[in-house]
Amino acid sequence: MNQQAELALAMDWGGTWNRIAVVNPAGEMLWQSRQPNAPGADRQQLLTAGRALIDQARQWCGDRPIAGLGIAVAGPVDAATGALLDPPNLPALNGVSLSDQWAPALPFPILIGNDANLAALGEYRYGAGLAARREQSAVNTLVYVTVSTGIGGGVIDRGRMFLGANGMAAEIGHQVIDRSRAAPLCACGRRGCLESLASGTAIARIARRRAAAPGVNSALSARSAGEITAETVFAAAGQSDPLAQEIVADAIQALAVGLVNGLHLYNPDLLVMGGGVSAGLARQGLLPHLNALLSEKAMSAGHRNFRLRPSRLGDAAGMSGAAALVWAEN
Amino acid sequence: MNQQAELALAMDWGGTWNRIAVVNPAGEMLWQSRQPNAPGADRQQLLTAGRALIDQARQWCGDRPIAGLGIAVAGPVDAATGALLDPPNLPALNGVSLSDQWAPALPFPILIGNDANLAALGEYRYGAGLAARREQSAVNTLVYVTVSTGIGGGVIDRGRMFLGANGMAAEIGHQVIDRSRAAPLCACGRRGCLESLASGTAIARIARRRAAAPGVNSALSARSAGEITAETVFAAAGQSDPLAQEIVADAIQALAVGLVNGLHLYNPDLLVMGGGVSAGLARQGLLPHLNALLSEKAMSAGHRNFRLRPSRLGDAAGMSGAAALVWAEN
Repeated sequence: MNQQAELALAMDWGGTWNRIAVVNPAGEMLWQSRQPNAPGADRQQLLTAGRALIDQARQWCGDRPIAGLGIAVAGPVDAATGALLDPPNLPALNGVSLSDQWAPALPFPILIGNDANLAALGEYRYGAGLAARREQSAVNTLVYVTVSTGIGGGVIDRGRMFLGANGMAAEIGHQVIDRSRAAPLCACGRRGCLESLASGTAIARIARRRAAAPGVNSALSARSAGEITAETVFAAAGQSDPLAQEIVADAIQALAVGLVNGLHLYNPDLLVMGGGVSAGLARQGLLPHLNALLSEKAMSAGHRNFRLRPSRLGDAAGMSGAAALVWAEN
Repeated sequence: MNQQAELALAMDWGGTWNRIAVVNPAGEMLWQSRQPNAPGADRQQLLTAGRALIDQARQWCGDRPIAGLGIAVAGPVDAATGALLDPPNLPALNGVSLSDQWAPALPFPILIGNDANLAALGEYRYGAGLAARREQSAVNTLVYVTVSTGIGGGVIDRGRMFLGANGMAAEIGHQVIDRSRAAPLCACGRRGCLESLASGTAIARIARRRAAAPGVNSALSARSAGEITAETVFAAAGQSDPLAQEIVADAIQALAVGLVNGLHLYNPDLLVMGGGVSAGLARQGLLPHLNALLSEKAMSAGHRNFRLRPSRLGDAAGMSGAAALVWAEN
């Protein structure tokens, strides 16, 4: 490893895009690029495209030494081998260790993690956690929750990722909070998970069903099912549409239950909300309302002793965390 | 600190008893004593009695050096100051730091923790975790759950207690798994917590209500409400009483939901079940059934990759963990 290196490469390989950045030790992105995953690409095609993206970044760096490559991937990562395990949006990469694939031909180490865990690390090191430390607030335990198409999360305790035995801790969206038979089916196959009640997908599904009911007075009813997304629901709620407001309020209630469970299980002092649905809530000015619900329902003063903050890094959080992995090794 | 010391004192101060032991570095209890908390005792009386118990233990040790005193207390402990925070069963000790009280007059360090967290540490070091390591299985992440009057827990990750920001993580009993309005009220003031559905108190409450319904054919119906406890329900279930069996089956279902949530949030490789209700389930041969439910409902192979084991240390787990705290500092 090169002690002089002041550049790290950080990749965030999601279901749609593969993004890469050159990052300095302060977490600043000096250069970025991205490419879409070719639809229907097989394993070898994906690996070749990913490798080309790395070579682009190396070319930008020129002669400057590179400390390492950190990779955030959308899916579970085996903590011991770095292999992807059933990545839901990158099925062709199942079982692949990107570090085994690429490390032999590259002159720097490769470090891999799950994107939600690394987004938590990115926020801790360079985002909401850094902002808190600048306000002289220690951050002992950070819980990051992303509410987007699905709901995921990551936990940083005393500066370290809490990964669990196999790197799969903090599946905050897959806690059952409604065990009734009528609870909605979740993508994971169970019923009543937080994700099935409060994710962007859930909000859109609930809105489609309710807008189609006879006699509903809502701007959403005029739209085709395909046009109804979490974003259109938030937009309608912003225009005081009663149905949209009710759907958003229900999602916030479900989110509050899941997040209070998170307070009781992890006892964070900083709770960071990322993802498109969180951004929608923030735009509607609803985060203080969510915060009040959490404080009201938390079981003790010690569990109420947290701050709720929106993500500072947005969709760059995963790449920032991937870079933080590299700098932690240097 | 004395490098030669081969004795630690370990105290477990519960709501009913205060217990103390002299423990060697292998976790073996060489001597034990206990005294009941005097009913209605005020703060000073409790502290005086506790101090007398410590002096008994010191007397037993004679001239042999003591490495330290570890104390497990029934209630939340402020991680920074060691102060007890609203201990539900020791209200007179609210705000007291036992280490501030006793350390000035004692020639060894005092270390304090919550009893469920320390029971987890005890099981990790000297109980179910030690047994697993002896079978050549690494233990990366241990989740300890006690199902007793209430439901609590503790998490050990890579040998370290996961405490959260204020020492109050792992309140596994206080996750809402039933957000319906009809869900039972929990001791914490919310509705639908795991504790309100599967603790010993919950099992007894449900049995009293259901046994009193007209036309029920159950041995429990012949008993007065005061005679119905979780133990009598387990005993009746063991004699094939249909109502008792149904109540136990319902509690197991609720427990499975809460424990699967725990698998998804902590991703343990060892799940240790302690407390009287767990012992009741073990006696009825129901732990394999619970294990099968967990494996069936866990969302991925990585989350299913755990072993379920009954507590090895029983009600000595907290004291063992308190001793482990001392040995970790030596």
